[in-house]
Amino acid sequence: MITRNPAGAKKPVTIETVTADSYRQAKDRLRDAIARLGEEGRFRLPSEAELSTALGVSRATIRSALQSLQKEGRIRRLHGQGTFINRHAIGIGANLAEASPFIDLLEQAGYRPGVRTLDQRVVALDQELAASLELPVGDRALRIERVFEANGEPAVHSVDYVPANLLGDHPEERDPRRSTFEFVEVGAGLSVCYSVAEVRPVLPPRPVVTALDVKRSHPVLRLRHTHIRANELPVAVTVVHVNDDYLRFSVIRTYLDQ
Amino acid sequence: MITRNPAGAKKPVTIETVTADSYRQAKDRLRDAIARLGEEGRFRLPSEAELSTALGVSRATIRSALQSLQKEGRIRRLHGQGTFINRHAIGIGANLAEASPFIDLLEQAGYRPGVRTLDQRVVALDQELAASLELPVGDRALRIERVFEANGEPAVHSVDYVPANLLGDHPEERDPRRSTFEFVEVGAGLSVCYSVAEVRPVLPPRPVVTALDVKRSHPVLRLRHTHIRANELPVAVTVVHVNDDYLRFSVIRTYLDQ
Repeated sequence: MITRNPAGAKKPVTIETVTADSYRQAKDRLRDAIARLGEEGRFRLPSEAELSTALGVSRATIRSALQSLQKEGRIRRLHGQGTFINRHAIGIGANLAEASPFIDLLEQAGYRPGVRTLDQRVVALDQELAASLELPVGDRALRIERVFEANGEPAVHSVDYVPANLLGDHPEERDPRRSTFEFVEVGAGLSVCYSVAEVRPVLPPRPVVTALDVKRSHPVLRLRHTHIRANELPVAVTVVHVNDDYLRFSVIRTYLDQ
Repeated sequence: MITRNPAGAKKPVTIETVTADSYRQAKDRLRDAIARLGEEGRFRLPSEAELSTALGVSRATIRSALQSLQKEGRIRRLHGQGTFINRHAIGIGANLAEASPFIDLLEQAGYRPGVRTLDQRVVALDQELAASLELPVGDRALRIERVFEANGEPAVHSVDYVPANLLGDHPEERDPRRSTFEFVEVGAGLSVCYSVAEVRPVLPPRPVVTALDVKRSHPVLRLRHTHIRANELPVAVTVVHVNDDYLRFSVIRTYLDQ
């Protein structure tokens, strides 16, 4: 459901052009390095210059990767003291502040992940959706209902609403196997920049009871995302219900200005 | 329950000493400035130098405040392009990644906030608590059970466990009106640096049903915090149940390395 957005990273930066790939590789390798250092009981990271040399990527890329890891709460940076690993944050699986695809989260949790599209159709926006998308009530949107599976069992129910005017002609003919954001990014060149997600504990509504095969009395985590693109306009709404028997989120809450 | 930790901010930084007060003031004033700019439809922030002059605080302080706001998802910084306001993130009330005291969150939500201590006693650590606190099973801890109120109605149930060895002699004689972290910080000079919180939707256990005056079938948000201090050792566990009729959390999920 969620894909990283390379658009901004392809723009020129102060020193050089950072491609999404080198950035992602640097971040993955930094993660590995952090895990290794943590296991060895070393919680202070080498300098940006040393990391740049060791991983063979530019300092701008290292800096971006460090900023991202800091924002996720994995590391903390103290002026004049260095960069430190938040040891207890290394191991947590599904970080709520980190926008990862459910497929990846389920795989990281040790499951064989899968996804099924239950329904795809064009709907008229009701008042609540229209307000979130800053569009008139009654405007058309593509509604995509999917289930993410863990070892073939339904674990996450997801409904995306994407304004039809972002999808060009005949939105209902889109390939249902492609991700919603692939539609939006590839189809309309409008990339998701951040999402605001309301986090609620709820009893599953009827369609979720059926789709996730849970009891009506089984509480689930409801995440209602409004996805915002770089021009600050909302681009889509995604309402997710998570059966936390399969996927349990954590969040790093930091106190100190780091 | 949660207090900011000024310890790190009092240490020397690269350029000068940043005190917790000037930092907090700068952050509050930056927040105000951001809200004003947002209302005027201006989403790009002035430079660090301009903000430093306008708010009358050092650039080091401005930089710390900007980093903190960035980590909370309120702003995004793009190399070579500037700092931008995440417009849709300004208005959200209770940010899950931002560690604010419940008293403040309830006040921001428009309630007259209050807190009541239900119980305070010394307990022996069970296996789960001992594992989180990295202490032997059976070690003593101070257990503090409290309710945070919204206009006199119970809204949040909180239980803190603080190892007795951090509290000096006679932990049971502590003033129950003082916050847990005040105990730990003032009493033992060990400051909380970050917390890892597991986020779960649950049906309220029996004591929470009573304390929050909710039905057993009313799902609540359970946040189980392990608080970590600067030396990377766990310092306390707090288990919170939130009635989201009163307090609803959101989280900013960012995609781009900003």
